[in-house]
Amino acid sequence: MLRPGAERVAALGGLHTFMRWPGPMITDSGGFQVMSLAALRKVTEQGVTFRSHLDGATVELTPERAVEVQRLLGTDIAMQLDECVRLPADRAEIERAMKLSLRWAERCKRAFEGTPPGHALFGIVQGGDDQRLREESLRALTAISFDGYAIGGLAVGESQEVMLEVVGKTAAAMPSDRPRYLMGVGTPADLLAAIGRGIDMFDCVLPTRNGRHGLAFTRFGPINIKNAHHADDPRPLDPESRCPAARDFSRAYLHHLFKAGEALGGTLLSVINLFYYQDLVAGTRAAIAAGCFADYAAQAKEQWQAKRDSDES
Amino acid sequence: MLRPGAERVAALGGLHTFMRWPGPMITDSGGFQVMSLAALRKVTEQGVTFRSHLDGATVELTPERAVEVQRLLGTDIAMQLDECVRLPADRAEIERAMKLSLRWAERCKRAFEGTPPGHALFGIVQGGDDQRLREESLRALTAISFDGYAIGGLAVGESQEVMLEVVGKTAAAMPSDRPRYLMGVGTPADLLAAIGRGIDMFDCVLPTRNGRHGLAFTRFGPINIKNAHHADDPRPLDPESRCPAARDFSRAYLHHLFKAGEALGGTLLSVINLFYYQDLVAGTRAAIAAGCFADYAAQAKEQWQAKRDSDES
Repeated sequence: MLRPGAERVAALGGLHTFMRWPGPMITDSGGFQVMSLAALRKVTEQGVTFRSHLDGATVELTPERAVEVQRLLGTDIAMQLDECVRLPADRAEIERAMKLSLRWAERCKRAFEGTPPGHALFGIVQGGDDQRLREESLRALTAISFDGYAIGGLAVGESQEVMLEVVGKTAAAMPSDRPRYLMGVGTPADLLAAIGRGIDMFDCVLPTRNGRHGLAFTRFGPINIKNAHHADDPRPLDPESRCPAARDFSRAYLHHLFKAGEALGGTLLSVINLFYYQDLVAGTRAAIAAGCFADYAAQAKEQWQAKRDSDES
Repeated sequence: MLRPGAERVAALGGLHTFMRWPGPMITDSGGFQVMSLAALRKVTEQGVTFRSHLDGATVELTPERAVEVQRLLGTDIAMQLDECVRLPADRAEIERAMKLSLRWAERCKRAFEGTPPGHALFGIVQGGDDQRLREESLRALTAISFDGYAIGGLAVGESQEVMLEVVGKTAAAMPSDRPRYLMGVGTPADLLAAIGRGIDMFDCVLPTRNGRHGLAFTRFGPINIKNAHHADDPRPLDPESRCPAARDFSRAYLHHLFKAGEALGGTLLSVINLFYYQDLVAGTRAAIAAGCFADYAAQAKEQWQAKRDSDES
């Protein structure tokens, strides 16, 4: 939206053409992103105004503009504009933001009318850690009717236990004929726990952000490749991975790339982590189809634990 | 040698295995690298001592150790240890360093004895911008006899005109049955000019370092992708390049990656530049074989010039 600018991307053929990514693409509306600006934003009934981090200009983001930006980008799945609240928060504050998000949801739905077929708009369930508010939000959203439903406003400060409780109860009430999407989550363990509670979709920066910082996700648990004991280790991260970088480079070499500040280190670990996440969810899909998801999840956890105890304590 | 350490790389199977690079590999002895440390080094007959930039430890690099390090790394072409002098410099200083480099050349040759077949050691012609010293250096090196000969101590502060004069006269006197290697050079124009004077081999950081800084080498001359006028340009850098990144991504996208600080920008431009250099020298080889090198070089220069005038002034 701000850089390089939604209108500019549209003139260049949309995000798929711009990035040369032919696969499906989901974009967030900006609600969560604006929350991270804290004091620099102002929320009103009309929308949210904030200062651009690039040039300090005041930018107004309304539900209508959020939909327009995502149409200009040419995304496959657009998200409604919502107001996220950091946890912990007062119930009154959570309720106010949830109800505002519902009114914005209606405006987004109207603004989305006339979008060509093949594009989807998702509603976002808010309500913090209050289950009654979550259910009120979900009921109202399904009355408006969206192509899919997301759980937003989690992984924003609460414990994993609270997060999974909200996910479990909310997912159980979500329409079973529409995708159920948990936003901004998470670790491999979070994914398995949420899938076990009925979640279908995720987005998260962890595979790439942790990769850039030297943390590799593997079948044997997370490995911090910057740890000194990898410096002489000729073993690959995982000889049985589908990922060439995980299979072919030694831990010693990956360790060296990080120690020497070579950008290739972050690139390789990002690729390794994306392969890992893709394989984890591919295995999950197969296990669900075969009716053995619980065994699959238990086995994955056992492998992580074994590694963590022996190698990365 | 210092990070991750030559002995460590050897224990990990050598540089080819460590980096997973199956192609030929050349390593420098450290003479040029130590020159860049300026006041932190001390040159004696025995070798050069310097402080490690990593931990401040004093490191001694002798001709024997330079050869040992390169054998431990498992390089295909090792370079003798030499002393480089920044230009301009006094003739006496240039002569002293050149003669010291010759004595080190003899010691490197002895130290290299017993290296398994398939590995080569090159001597390095020194002598600054003094042609008599250059020829004295070359005569002494050919008397010692190396697998190939390099021109060192250029591109260290002198003008391109002086560099090409030294290259032209020195290359003309170099053995025609051994590779002639110009160290640390250069731009595409430098390469064509040096090839025209008899040079066979080069090494240079320009394709990748300039790529990381946003400068793309193309058939149409250098393009600074960070310039604002690329922001809305849907054209690729070169629709006829063999390089997918040069052919498929828009200038607007590459521009955006640099503006947004995305590491992918430097990666893509490095790949684009390496393709460009490879194609430039492949074209040169074909033109030489066809007996039309002068036309090839003139045509390349004409294309660069046309672009520079119209687009990057």
